[in-house]
Amino acid sequence: MQVDAGDGVLFRSASASERQTFSELNSNQSNPSAGRRSGAGPGRLVDPLEDPLPGKSKDRDRHREIANKSRQSTVALLHSVSDAFSGWLLMLLVGLMSGALAGGIDIAAHWLTDMKEGLCLVGFWFNHEHCCWTSNETTFQERDRCPQWQSWAEIMTGTSEGALAYFVNYLMFLVWALLFALLAVTLVRAFAPYACGSGIPEIKTILSGFIIRGYLGKWTLIIKTITLVLAVSSGLSLGKEGPLVHVACCCANILCHLFTKYRKNEAKRREVLSAAAAVGVSVAFGAPIGGVLFSLEEVSYYFPLKTLWRSFFAALVAAFTLRSINPFGNSRLVLFYVEFHAPWHLVELGPFILLGIFGGLWGALFIRANIAWCRIRKSTRLGHYPVTEVLVVTALTGMLAYPNSYTRMGGAELISELFNDCSLLDSSQLCGYKQVGGASNSTSGAGVGNGLADRPAGVGLYAALWQLALALVFKMMITVITFGMKVPSGLFIPSMAVGAIAGRLLGVGMEQLAYYNHDSAIFRGWCSPGADCITPGLYAMVGAAACLGGVTRMTVSLVVIMFELTGGLEYIVPLMAATMTSKWVADAFGREGIYEAHIRLNGYPFLEPKEEFQHSSLTADVMRPRRSDPPLAVLTQEGMTVEEVEALVESTHYSGFPVVVSQDSHRLVGFVLRRDLLISIDNARKRQEGVVGASQVVFTEHSPAPADDAPPPLRLRGIVDLSPFTVTDHTPMDITVDIFRKLGLRQCLVTHNGKLLGIITKKDILKHMANDCQQRPRLHPLQL
Amino acid sequence: MQVDAGDGVLFRSASASERQTFSELNSNQSNPSAGRRSGAGPGRLVDPLEDPLPGKSKDRDRHREIANKSRQSTVALLHSVSDAFSGWLLMLLVGLMSGALAGGIDIAAHWLTDMKEGLCLVGFWFNHEHCCWTSNETTFQERDRCPQWQSWAEIMTGTSEGALAYFVNYLMFLVWALLFALLAVTLVRAFAPYACGSGIPEIKTILSGFIIRGYLGKWTLIIKTITLVLAVSSGLSLGKEGPLVHVACCCANILCHLFTKYRKNEAKRREVLSAAAAVGVSVAFGAPIGGVLFSLEEVSYYFPLKTLWRSFFAALVAAFTLRSINPFGNSRLVLFYVEFHAPWHLVELGPFILLGIFGGLWGALFIRANIAWCRIRKSTRLGHYPVTEVLVVTALTGMLAYPNSYTRMGGAELISELFNDCSLLDSSQLCGYKQVGGASNSTSGAGVGNGLADRPAGVGLYAALWQLALALVFKMMITVITFGMKVPSGLFIPSMAVGAIAGRLLGVGMEQLAYYNHDSAIFRGWCSPGADCITPGLYAMVGAAACLGGVTRMTVSLVVIMFELTGGLEYIVPLMAATMTSKWVADAFGREGIYEAHIRLNGYPFLEPKEEFQHSSLTADVMRPRRSDPPLAVLTQEGMTVEEVEALVESTHYSGFPVVVSQDSHRLVGFVLRRDLLISIDNARKRQEGVVGASQVVFTEHSPAPADDAPPPLRLRGIVDLSPFTVTDHTPMDITVDIFRKLGLRQCLVTHNGKLLGIITKKDILKHMANDCQQRPRLHPLQL
Repeated sequence: MQVDAGDGVLFRSASASERQTFSELNSNQSNPSAGRRSGAGPGRLVDPLEDPLPGKSKDRDRHREIANKSRQSTVALLHSVSDAFSGWLLMLLVGLMSGALAGGIDIAAHWLTDMKEGLCLVGFWFNHEHCCWTSNETTFQERDRCPQWQSWAEIMTGTSEGALAYFVNYLMFLVWALLFALLAVTLVRAFAPYACGSGIPEIKTILSGFIIRGYLGKWTLIIKTITLVLAVSSGLSLGKEGPLVHVACCCANILCHLFTKYRKNEAKRREVLSAAAAVGVSVAFGAPIGGVLFSLEEVSYYFPLKTLWRSFFAALVAAFTLRSINPFGNSRLVLFYVEFHAPWHLVELGPFILLGIFGGLWGALFIRANIAWCRIRKSTRLGHYPVTEVLVVTALTGMLAYPNSYTRMGGAELISELFNDCSLLDSSQLCGYKQVGGASNSTSGAGVGNGLADRPAGVGLYAALWQLALALVFKMMITVITFGMKVPSGLFIPSMAVGAIAGRLLGVGMEQLAYYNHDSAIFRGWCSPGADCITPGLYAMVGAAACLGGVTRMTVSLVVIMFELTGGLEYIVPLMAATMTSKWVADAFGREGIYEAHIRLNGYPFLEPKEEFQHSSLTADVMRPRRSDPPLAVLTQEGMTVEEVEALVESTHYSGFPVVVSQDSHRLVGFVLRRDLLISIDNARKRQEGVVGASQVVFTEHSPAPADDAPPPLRLRGIVDLSPFTVTDHTPMDITVDIFRKLGLRQCLVTHNGKLLGIITKKDILKHMANDCQQRPRLHPLQL
Repeated sequence: MQVDAGDGVLFRSASASERQTFSELNSNQSNPSAGRRSGAGPGRLVDPLEDPLPGKSKDRDRHREIANKSRQSTVALLHSVSDAFSGWLLMLLVGLMSGALAGGIDIAAHWLTDMKEGLCLVGFWFNHEHCCWTSNETTFQERDRCPQWQSWAEIMTGTSEGALAYFVNYLMFLVWALLFALLAVTLVRAFAPYACGSGIPEIKTILSGFIIRGYLGKWTLIIKTITLVLAVSSGLSLGKEGPLVHVACCCANILCHLFTKYRKNEAKRREVLSAAAAVGVSVAFGAPIGGVLFSLEEVSYYFPLKTLWRSFFAALVAAFTLRSINPFGNSRLVLFYVEFHAPWHLVELGPFILLGIFGGLWGALFIRANIAWCRIRKSTRLGHYPVTEVLVVTALTGMLAYPNSYTRMGGAELISELFNDCSLLDSSQLCGYKQVGGASNSTSGAGVGNGLADRPAGVGLYAALWQLALALVFKMMITVITFGMKVPSGLFIPSMAVGAIAGRLLGVGMEQLAYYNHDSAIFRGWCSPGADCITPGLYAMVGAAACLGGVTRMTVSLVVIMFELTGGLEYIVPLMAATMTSKWVADAFGREGIYEAHIRLNGYPFLEPKEEFQHSSLTADVMRPRRSDPPLAVLTQEGMTVEEVEALVESTHYSGFPVVVSQDSHRLVGFVLRRDLLISIDNARKRQEGVVGASQVVFTEHSPAPADDAPPPLRLRGIVDLSPFTVTDHTPMDITVDIFRKLGLRQCLVTHNGKLLGIITKKDILKHMANDCQQRPRLHPLQL
């Protein structure tokens, strides 16, 4: 459901009540002077769309007040300390709540996913693994098989063998998947339209200063948590990692309401949201440092050092909360725990870079295809049937995925298996090597000798490779049409799965190449027979990083997340080589990552902080009014009557007006908000005696004595912002854009030789940049 | 040697040739309008003190040009690609060079340190360890003793036993130490005065936009590298980690000259320097991620994402270069490799926080004491005898340090030993536990049974504890007078040593407490007999982090560096708790870290980006001219003659002048640099026919036709910066300070109602903040 909010900017529409605030917001936004920062003057109203800078200034006033008071009494001192602590307390609460929710989501998703396959007879609330823990009849080798856990075929037909049983299981798998998907999409549509998608594009937009009301509200949180579990369990090609960032931000936003300091100050709340983004990744991967860098690199707009410390603290708390909940049952902090034994060799950088190129190509292709598909959804009738779409995609995914064991299992499980280094006792098909000397060893446990050394691939492994190749093609296709549907959907896991499959394939290939060519020039010296020289699991990991890097264009945070998974500095170089290559290759096909692409698709007012503005226009070319427009509506500091002011305000829809010395000189005095003006005039008419339509409105400090018969003037200096930001008309646009970004402005007045000439808003800049996009010379991607 | 450069600001003076550029710089700096950013106008000169913003703009012009050209020919395309690659190539070179230098410094320092004790008979160029590698007569237990390595006593007196031998060794130790110290301080004084100290305060200042010519030059690099080795070997209580940051920055600065892109653009060069700071820490500790965060948290002023990626890349390259040089001979990447086996228990957070408090107190105390000592050095005659000072302190250090084995060994070695967890085969005195059941086990190898379990302390351990306590007192005292002497000196290792000693003492104490009170309420449940429940090495590590945190006020980067040393996420929580406590405690006694304190001590123009400006003054209170001052010197856009302009320029020392419409209206047109003005007039007089003293100077675009008899006007619009930054006189100072910080301004014009009122410079702000410091209400330290 799309609403064109004027100006050709599309916003995803919300439920009736939300739509109103949204359109209200839009009208605000489309005014050239909306959201003027609120200063410190008396009688000033708080603007909800205020900028970081004045938000900070307000906070400072509050500090000063508290600090002054704290000298007066001990109670006030305690208040001062508690105020100081409240930031840390809030971080603690965000960490605890996000960690707990993430743990709950993990447990529930695990349970529901297993429910698609069968039921625990001891208690339906046990998942497959827990069910068999209670059993005494399992062996270590077949710890997944126990009589308590029965597949649907066993429950219904009494047997787990044969075509009928397979068919029943297949059918039940599909039925459950469709049920979960239906429930998810219905809940999203009915209660919280904002709960769909990954949420990261919107959070980036919110952190850049835009407000989407209800996007981080309690309903979004509740519905997103529930539907995330359902969507993940339905077997769709999506992950829970991106949405966890949204969940953590919702937690933070809701918890902000507990503290006056954060409830009232948008700028401080955005700092908390930046930290919450770090918390989200921290619980998603068990990587607190990586989470902080993710927030810094990918999500945040304004990231002061204070936020760095606090995000780190919150990310740690969340990671430890999650660990104490222990959803994976292995008391590991990280999602994929990997331990590699063999070092890598310099020659291997070649295949690692190849994986980087693959990742970059896949990233660029995925973004193009996904955006094209989303455009089709927007512009055709497809967009009108989101429920049908979700059900069809779920059915398709289920039908194609079930026959292949690598697509049937969950994405995280698949990646975990692909990252895994084959150990002696491994029963996985991927470790189906021939023991040197003889028979295939696909279900294993046998060899003790040189089990870890390099081995020729056996039948089991070849079968696995074919399945993996099919899984790769399937995942690549289905992810394109899945991301962007009206269910919560993350991209991390599907992207990583694609990369991990490709990496594992290449890794096994390299391994076999090395096995059969020990004596060739390349392998001689570091790959002697009987030694384990190539680790296919490492290739899978590098491939996963490369593909995720290609899609999101993260680099450092991605490498750090992967580093936290292995804990070995040794593997940083392969990861770095692959992610950098991936970023360069992908950037060559388009500078936008998937999140920026979705931001642009949805038309959010987001000023990309990374991209450099390349055009050589001047501010005069971008500002309004344009040459053909009517002149700028201004107030003079004296000489206008209340009636004239009211007429001016009513004839325009701007939310603020510059105040000048006189219509002739046009020398800028300040800036006054529409709302303040209306409220002040209204109050004055009600309370102040003698203020009538013919009263003069005076913005100066000392007004001339009024004529004897004139009504008393209305003094409004208090509501004028006397320090509006200005640039000259000759300022190059790249400097103006930089000022907007760094100071977080929403608009800026333009002067020429001290005379007010016009106004330039963030929206003007965005439009100008969009127009400019086609014409400007493309920068080489390596430049960044 | 101090030179008062006017305004009461003290700068360390340089050698004759450097002094000139320095004073030139100072005069530049003390002008209210020095260093005006250079715009894109024709005929504009490049200002060496330009701001990041216009530096960026210049870079963009260059990009555009290259991108446009690249369409024309393949050669130009190649040029474009190589231009794009040059940034990465530069990073690669910085990493390689810094890694190689760090490796060289490590090897040389190791060798010279061992030379104080004895000589390798096989070849004097072997250090103790290498010497014994060549020997076949060493056992694993006594791998440090071999006949090839002889102490000075053995060489001179033929015996290593007895009082005489001890005395000879003691004497030789002192003689070598004094020799090294003398050489170091002489070299520093003779060739590169900037090579002394840690360099981090100066690099912070340079990164904030100030230029200290020669500070990062090749002489500084050469001399600092050599004297760093000498200073470390002399046994003084200093580390090489801080100076390595300086060395890496020198490398970066020198390598910048290879690339036009970086040679000509100060702003881009500063980005490279930020990355180099990361490289420095990366090679110092083998912690690339920690290095990047150190640069971000502690050193850098402007840290865009591009710098993040590049620093990470450079830090990795450097770490791997260092590893392939393998100076520690153990192919470990990290300086202190630690592996702990036992987890920590929640109860232990108590002692960890205690260590944090100790670290904070020590940090605050150290900063006060060190700054007081440095002031004494500056203000008394002590400062005139730097060589004597260094020699006296070296002698004192040597005499007191030699008898105690823990102070005799190098700082890094000491820390390494303190961090170490006692293993079965450990021969260290610190592991002198009694085997349960019997005899002291100080030289060991015996027990196999529960050797790792908890044990009562033996005689060896008690002796070690006393020595450690003495070492703690000694280190605390001597470090205060050592840091700030005229030799290269880092603070990281001495601070960490103090903390590690304190931590180990507490750790052993806790361990014994647990051993003798297994059944008390505190230890019951997690500390059963026979289990290794407390790791004294972890306490040492936490203590080291706390003390370093107290001195430098780092938090996240410190924790990450420590995390990289252990690779275990488990120990992040104790480290975090200790560093946070330490920061809070230290902040309660003074907000400045040691580097900020030294910046203030030396009077560098540095606008602290972390601290919030707390005063409620307006820009009008801070700007110049003050009420009592003569009016601002301005140019009018027309009507002034060449003679009048020259008179104005000569009568003032400002390096730039605002251009206004007329003296009456004072409406601001732009800003023109003194230098541009002088050069243009000079050129015009030489070349342009008819320009004489009476010619009109015209800054407008279209000048009125001159009278028939008047000489032709001199048109100078090209040199006017038409987009000067302005604020109004009513802008609160906190917002102005924020604008200065975020846009990296050096000055800003102040207007009132469109009329030019005055000018405000970075220096005005710094002065105002300094005056303000005493009066303003103190903020609670937890606030940050």
